[in-house]
Amino acid sequence: MKLKARLLEIQAGGKRIAILDDETASLVGVHSSDRVKITYESEELIAIVNIATNFPTKYVGLYQEISKELGIENEDSIEVQLAERPQALDYIQAKIRGERLRASDVKTIVKDVVERHLSDIELASFVTALYVHGLSMDEIEALSKAMVETGSLVSFDKIPILDKHSIGGVPGDTTSMVVVPLIAAAGFFIPKTSSRAVTSPAGTADSVETLCPVDLNLEEIREVVKKTNGCLVWGGALDLAPADDLFIQVEYPLAIDPLLLPSIMSKKRAVGATHVVIDIPVGRGAKVKTIGEAHTLAYDFIDLGNRLGMDVQCAVTFGEQPVGYAVGPALEAREALSTLMGKGPPDLREKAVNIAAMLLEMAGIHNGKQTAEKLLKTGKAERKLRDIIEAQGGDPDINPEDVEVGGKRAEITTAEKGRVLWINNEHIARVAKEAGAPKDHGAGIVLKIKLGKHVKKDGVLFQIYAERDTKLESAVELAQKLQPIGLSKKPEERMLMDRIPTRAVHRKTFMLER
Amino acid sequence: MKLKARLLEIQAGGKRIAILDDETASLVGVHSSDRVKITYESEELIAIVNIATNFPTKYVGLYQEISKELGIENEDSIEVQLAERPQALDYIQAKIRGERLRASDVKTIVKDVVERHLSDIELASFVTALYVHGLSMDEIEALSKAMVETGSLVSFDKIPILDKHSIGGVPGDTTSMVVVPLIAAAGFFIPKTSSRAVTSPAGTADSVETLCPVDLNLEEIREVVKKTNGCLVWGGALDLAPADDLFIQVEYPLAIDPLLLPSIMSKKRAVGATHVVIDIPVGRGAKVKTIGEAHTLAYDFIDLGNRLGMDVQCAVTFGEQPVGYAVGPALEAREALSTLMGKGPPDLREKAVNIAAMLLEMAGIHNGKQTAEKLLKTGKAERKLRDIIEAQGGDPDINPEDVEVGGKRAEITTAEKGRVLWINNEHIARVAKEAGAPKDHGAGIVLKIKLGKHVKKDGVLFQIYAERDTKLESAVELAQKLQPIGLSKKPEERMLMDRIPTRAVHRKTFMLER
Repeated sequence: MKLKARLLEIQAGGKRIAILDDETASLVGVHSSDRVKITYESEELIAIVNIATNFPTKYVGLYQEISKELGIENEDSIEVQLAERPQALDYIQAKIRGERLRASDVKTIVKDVVERHLSDIELASFVTALYVHGLSMDEIEALSKAMVETGSLVSFDKIPILDKHSIGGVPGDTTSMVVVPLIAAAGFFIPKTSSRAVTSPAGTADSVETLCPVDLNLEEIREVVKKTNGCLVWGGALDLAPADDLFIQVEYPLAIDPLLLPSIMSKKRAVGATHVVIDIPVGRGAKVKTIGEAHTLAYDFIDLGNRLGMDVQCAVTFGEQPVGYAVGPALEAREALSTLMGKGPPDLREKAVNIAAMLLEMAGIHNGKQTAEKLLKTGKAERKLRDIIEAQGGDPDINPEDVEVGGKRAEITTAEKGRVLWINNEHIARVAKEAGAPKDHGAGIVLKIKLGKHVKKDGVLFQIYAERDTKLESAVELAQKLQPIGLSKKPEERMLMDRIPTRAVHRKTFMLER
Repeated sequence: MKLKARLLEIQAGGKRIAILDDETASLVGVHSSDRVKITYESEELIAIVNIATNFPTKYVGLYQEISKELGIENEDSIEVQLAERPQALDYIQAKIRGERLRASDVKTIVKDVVERHLSDIELASFVTALYVHGLSMDEIEALSKAMVETGSLVSFDKIPILDKHSIGGVPGDTTSMVVVPLIAAAGFFIPKTSSRAVTSPAGTADSVETLCPVDLNLEEIREVVKKTNGCLVWGGALDLAPADDLFIQVEYPLAIDPLLLPSIMSKKRAVGATHVVIDIPVGRGAKVKTIGEAHTLAYDFIDLGNRLGMDVQCAVTFGEQPVGYAVGPALEAREALSTLMGKGPPDLREKAVNIAAMLLEMAGIHNGKQTAEKLLKTGKAERKLRDIIEAQGGDPDINPEDVEVGGKRAEITTAEKGRVLWINNEHIARVAKEAGAPKDHGAGIVLKIKLGKHVKKDGVLFQIYAERDTKLESAVELAQKLQPIGLSKKPEERMLMDRIPTRAVHRKTFMLER
């Protein structure tokens, strides 16, 4: 039926939502959460209905996502009808019942997701059903392919295209900022897209942004890569596998990520990667706790890679403490730049060289590690990073100390002397975030010790950097409460690892930085 | 931090939603779907955050659910902080992982649901996890109790309080309208609350509303019941087990109802029922397909009833065709009234007498069926219905033909003669709804035949009633397409029941009328 448009001057978080009062909803024949087809000047889209009891009758309230898309003005007369039920719902319900989905079912679901035909309720139910029932490798493959097909692609007339990705979970991991220049300096294409932090103190894109712009479009990326062989850009606005971003919006509040594999691999496929190393940090404080679990996950990555036409290898890396000493966008950028300049922490250097070596060997270089070491030692990798910084619009002559970090600082010391028994990744991340990271690029943490190190009484465990006094204060307070670093004279003096008074609650941490 | 309020002059469908732009969200430290605590003049509540990229910085957009609750005006300065994570989320995640919940966990979840601390995404995930993993009887009991405790109660100083409930799914089922006067006429209290139609062509509340008001508050209900022993009211606005209504909002789009048992039984408990008959219609076109399934469900109802301190019996009834001939609010009211006046269809009469007899015998009457028959025959039940109609504010002298039905009518006939082999409940319901039911109270269907009946060529199968020509036309069209009634000379001539070309999709139908 014909209704008058009442434009709401706000967005609905990317969702297509139409508001009807209950009287009008009843005339259209819809309930809350049902769908309507909205037609205006021969263009149409599907919207989810919200019922508002005090909205004017015979009006439809439109958030900007709809009014802008269709060019609707206030008081325009638009056609609103009960929409056909999206076919995806049948397949979502099949998955809820525990059935296996066929590739065509999966394609229908992903298409309806990208076209915004499904509500948050339906998406949340689907993601939960995937988590509970699990996915077969056929389903994972179909999801990955459908996610690639419904998004943009980056293509280069060159083979091989190398890429690396960490499943994340370890603070301070700037490996990509070192690996990309290494690979590019070796003459291979590596068009690296990264995420910004969602729940961590720094995503690779946040760190790189303290050196140069990262918000490039597809055309600009192609230019940078043609010029330098590599790039270090933010992948978020490139429309690569957009279904994934929509799934993440419901995975984040639920803290479950059944789509980890298709999420990561669809984005690798979308940039045309032919050879990929997946970094799986393992340890108590990492996402993957044991080497056995890492193997299982690794085989899935390799299998999926093959199904998508990519050569995949996995690196199982030590994830029980932060990589390097720095946590926070600017502090991490400083550390990565230092590492390429021949200084920098040994663990970051070692990790980056090994992953670069794996990629080089996958691409046919026989002595990958030697090659990588040489590119680092001769300064070729450093020059390559500077080329990339320049190509992306930054200052190629930047030095680590030029990267601005927070001027407000505090030191966290230990009252007892002892050996560092553990560094709690999650707590380190929380303190860095409390100090302002990633929003305040200069905020974060610099560790003064690592695992196994002996510390004297009143010795400094870590420094907190902040841009604002209030942030510094609350970070110090949190650090004192959480005590992220555990000390003891000997391990045998701290046998009790946990006491469980009632129900132990296990929270998964920052799993969505992909 | 302090933000200025920008009031949105609309509702968010009962949800508490606050809008922030991404800059402000980042300062508060929240992402989309996170929660904030909103404090204004020492009152506070929890809201879910929606991010709008073009919203003014340092403002918080408030839908009416929040601004009205806290009495906030435009441009007021209000405190907005990251809220503590509701404890319910830990238990919801435990359920997603397949753990059993303790009574205290369930209580925490239901409390957070009622206080609107959970988003649609979290509720949908919880309901899906309940559906996939199932619920133990301890969990069902805890859910029922928590749902009762977080809502209003109706109490009477009298025992026993009788009640009945049908799990629904069969069109035209006006049994309650006959049973309530029968029980009340026998001298027992029966404070019956019913739902309006959600997806069916008529809920009991819709039908009764064509005779008298049904939207009574708790005090008015107590008055009516004290005066007449019974009532027939709408339960929707009484705040009985309000958590259930919130669960239904996400169950409806998902078409799953893992909370059927606690949903029904918490509402019985909230009206103080001591003796309850649950009607389980069984048959191909009903929710429960086989007698075996009905038994399993019945034992669960009986067990749960005992755990909640209620004496419960179940009636397994024939559900392969509509009850009586009429489908639609006014047409069904006519039929129920006729039945109490000694006319009316034999199946409706038989069903109502049997359920009333069960209730009477549970309450200690030895010859329940005879008593019920007598109350019907002597007109006492009819007079009781008229008393209830009067007490609720309707005309006690109303006759069936006074109930206004749609003036636009059409007949659906058969081209071939034959015996009625099936009547598809779902299709009958869809045609009645297409004709305008339940919104148009006078719209619906009157069957001219029932199962097993012989029909001549060009014989009338059913009549469609509508209030508007357009509705009549589209209902006739749908009836011709669906062919809800199957005829054959002999059953052996129609052996092929279904052909499955690709994937067979099973949709559950109108399961949410409770």
